[in-house]
Amino acid sequence: MINAHTGPQPADFADVRATNLAVVLRFVRENAPCSRADIAASTGLNKATVSSLVADLIDRRLLRETGLTENRVGRPATMLVLDGSPYAAIGIEVNVDHLTAVAIDLAGTELLSWRRSFPGAAATPGQTVAAVAALARRVLNRMAKEARQVLGLTVAVPGLVDVNGSVGIAPNLGWRDVDLSGDLAKALRDPGFPVLVDNDANLAALAEHRFGPHGGVADLVYLTGEVGVGAGVILDGRLRRGGRGFAGEIGHIQVDPAGAQCRCGRRGCLEAVAGMAAVLHDTAPDATPAELEPEIEDIVRLARGADPSVLGTLAGIGGELGKGVAVIANMLNPEVVVLGGYYVALAPWVLPAAQAEFARRSVAPDGGGTRLVASTLGYRAAALGAAARLLDSIDSGRLPAAQT
Amino acid sequence: MINAHTGPQPADFADVRATNLAVVLRFVRENAPCSRADIAASTGLNKATVSSLVADLIDRRLLRETGLTENRVGRPATMLVLDGSPYAAIGIEVNVDHLTAVAIDLAGTELLSWRRSFPGAAATPGQTVAAVAALARRVLNRMAKEARQVLGLTVAVPGLVDVNGSVGIAPNLGWRDVDLSGDLAKALRDPGFPVLVDNDANLAALAEHRFGPHGGVADLVYLTGEVGVGAGVILDGRLRRGGRGFAGEIGHIQVDPAGAQCRCGRRGCLEAVAGMAAVLHDTAPDATPAELEPEIEDIVRLARGADPSVLGTLAGIGGELGKGVAVIANMLNPEVVVLGGYYVALAPWVLPAAQAEFARRSVAPDGGGTRLVASTLGYRAAALGAAARLLDSIDSGRLPAAQT
Repeated sequence: MINAHTGPQPADFADVRATNLAVVLRFVRENAPCSRADIAASTGLNKATVSSLVADLIDRRLLRETGLTENRVGRPATMLVLDGSPYAAIGIEVNVDHLTAVAIDLAGTELLSWRRSFPGAAATPGQTVAAVAALARRVLNRMAKEARQVLGLTVAVPGLVDVNGSVGIAPNLGWRDVDLSGDLAKALRDPGFPVLVDNDANLAALAEHRFGPHGGVADLVYLTGEVGVGAGVILDGRLRRGGRGFAGEIGHIQVDPAGAQCRCGRRGCLEAVAGMAAVLHDTAPDATPAELEPEIEDIVRLARGADPSVLGTLAGIGGELGKGVAVIANMLNPEVVVLGGYYVALAPWVLPAAQAEFARRSVAPDGGGTRLVASTLGYRAAALGAAARLLDSIDSGRLPAAQT
Repeated sequence: MINAHTGPQPADFADVRATNLAVVLRFVRENAPCSRADIAASTGLNKATVSSLVADLIDRRLLRETGLTENRVGRPATMLVLDGSPYAAIGIEVNVDHLTAVAIDLAGTELLSWRRSFPGAAATPGQTVAAVAALARRVLNRMAKEARQVLGLTVAVPGLVDVNGSVGIAPNLGWRDVDLSGDLAKALRDPGFPVLVDNDANLAALAEHRFGPHGGVADLVYLTGEVGVGAGVILDGRLRRGGRGFAGEIGHIQVDPAGAQCRCGRRGCLEAVAGMAAVLHDTAPDATPAELEPEIEDIVRLARGADPSVLGTLAGIGGELGKGVAVIANMLNPEVVVLGGYYVALAPWVLPAAQAEFARRSVAPDGGGTRLVASTLGYRAAALGAAARLLDSIDSGRLPAAQT
C-alpha cells in the first residue's frame, strides 16, 4: 500500500490549489513586501496562476496590496504584504504554577502575552478548566474589541496528550485521563472555533522553530525547564510525535540509578536530578509548586552574588542536564538543543557545566555539531507555539473562508 | 526563506513526471499484477497519463505486461508486473568478524546472499577495502553472467559515516577518517555505478522497514546486536539522520555509571553492558571478534540446555538492553523496536527480560504501544538494506535510462 509516510503522491487539483495558496502565503510572509512577479520567479508558478492565487488570498484577507512600487527598471509593480489583520490565534499554557496566554496574528506578531500565577499542581482538573476558560474569555473579549476573528485556541499541557486532545497522564499536575479539549469546548459553550490540546514541549519546539533565532535548522530539540523536563523533537523540519504521540518523554530517562527519588516512583530520572525540584533541593526543599517562581528568583540572586553553595548546586544541575543532552544528541544528532522554562534564567551557571558534560559524552567529535543554547522566547514559548500551531494549519493549506 | 524542510513546494513539470513515474512503479511493486485502470483509480492520475507513464516504464524495462487479463465485467485488461530483470543492486556489510554480500533485483527479490568470515576488527582499512573489492568483484561477475546491469554498490559500516561516504570513526573496526567510498571506487577502477557508504544500523532499519513484517509502520527503530550496538531511526516513514548524519549512536548512552568499562573509554555504555562482549564476559572473556560467532553459538547451546549461569547472564543482558529500549521508547515512541544481529539468536532468553525492564521504565502506559521484537531478516539485514538503498533512490524518481 502506498501511504503518506513512504513517499510522494500525486495530488488532485483541489489539493494542488490549496498547496499553492499556502506556498504563496508563506512566500509573502517570509519575503514581504514582494510583487506577484517575485512570487512567480521564486516559486516556479506561472504569472497567471500567481495572479489568481493572490486574488483569492486578498479575498480571504490574508494578503493586501501596499500601493508601494518596487524601485526597478520597467513597469512598476504593486507590492504585497501579509494582511491577516482580521484574524487571531490563541495559545494558553497550563503549568504547575502559572497560566500563560498569547494571541498572535497571521504574521506571527504578538497581540498580547499574559502570565498569571495559578496553582496548577494543586487545582483539580475542573478548577483548571474553569481558570483556562476564564482566561480564554478575557482574551476573546480583547480580540472581539479589535474586530478579529479567532481561528482557534490551543492549550499546552505538561503531559501525555493523545490525538483527540485528551490528557492521559500529566504527573506534575496530578491528572489522569482528562478530556481537556472536550471539557474546555463545553466551558466555552462551543465557541465556533477548534479547541486543541497538545504537549507543552512539542508546542514550545514549534515556537522555537518558527520564531526563534535557530528557525532555519532542520533538527531542533526543545527541553522544558519546569518541575518536569520534557522534550519536543523536530527532525527534518517537522515535529516527530511517535506512534501514539508520546515522543519526547525524556524527563523519566534514568541518568543515575543511585540518584534522587522521582515523583514517578522511579529513581534518578532526569527531571528528579536536573528539574527545578532538584535546583531547590538545598535551599527550599519544601517549596510548593506555587512558590517555584520566587524561589528560582532567589537562586538567581544568590548565584549573581557568587554564593558558593548555590554555584555548586547549579553546576551539578548542569552536569546532570548535560547527561540528558548527550542522550538526545547521541540518539538524534540535532543541530541545536534549546533549553527553555526556568533554565533560561539559570543558563549563565547551568549551561557551561551542561556543555562540558555533554561534550564528554558525545560519541561524535565536536558534539556532532549540536549546539546547546538557552531559549530567547522565555516563558511564553509553549503558549506561543500553541497559537502558532494554528498558523501551521493555515500554512499547510487549511485557509479561512473568503470574507464578505 | 522557503526550504524543503518547512513545507510543500510547487514542483516543475520534470519533477512531476519523475514523481509520478515513481508513484506508478511503487504502486505496481505493491499491487502487482494490476491494470492501468487500477493504477488510475488508486492514484488519482488520469488514464492517458497512466498509459504514458507505463509506456515509459516498460521502455526502461522496469515494468512488463503479463498477458494475463483481469477477471471482471467489461473489456479485459492487460495486467502489469514489475520487470526489473535486467537490473541488480548490491549491498555489502563490513563488520568485526564477517562480510555479508546481498544482491537484489528491483522487486527486492534476493539474487544472492553470501556471508564470509573476515577479521574486520584486526584488519587495516586497506586490507578491508581489498577484501570488500574482491567480494564485490565476485558479485559483479555473477551479475554479469545473468546479464544484469548493476545500479550501484552500497557498503554498510558500523561507524559514523558522513554525507560523502567517509567513515569518521568506527570504534570496533579501529578506524578513523577512512574515505571508504573513494578508496573502494578506486579499487574497483571506477566501476561506472555509484559506490555509497552508510551506517550499518541505518541500512538495517531501511531493510526492516521495506522487507520486514513491520514494514507498514511509520516509526521503527532497529538495534544492531554485534560487539557494538547502534540504532537506525525511522520516523514518519523516513530514516532520520540528524544534522551531520550521526543519529542513532545509542551504544554509548550510559545506562549504568557503575557499569563495565567500554572500549570508548567511558563507563557503563549500553554496548558495554548489553553488547556481545558483555554476553561473553563470563564464558569467554578473552574471545577475539573473529571468535564471536562460534562463541555465541556455544552460548545458545548452553541456554537451550538450561545452563543456570548462562540463563542468568542472558536475563541480565536483557535487563540492560531493556534500559536502552526504554530510552528509545520514551524519547521517540516508535511503534516497533527491532533487535538484530546476534540478538536474534539470543532472543528467546534476552527478549523477555528486556521487555519487562522496558515496561517498568516506560512513561506511557502499555509501553506507549511500542513492540519489542527480534528481526526476521537475520544477519543479512544491513547488507539487504545497503542494496535496498538503491531501490529507494529509484522510488524517489531517479530511474535508470530507457534500454535500447
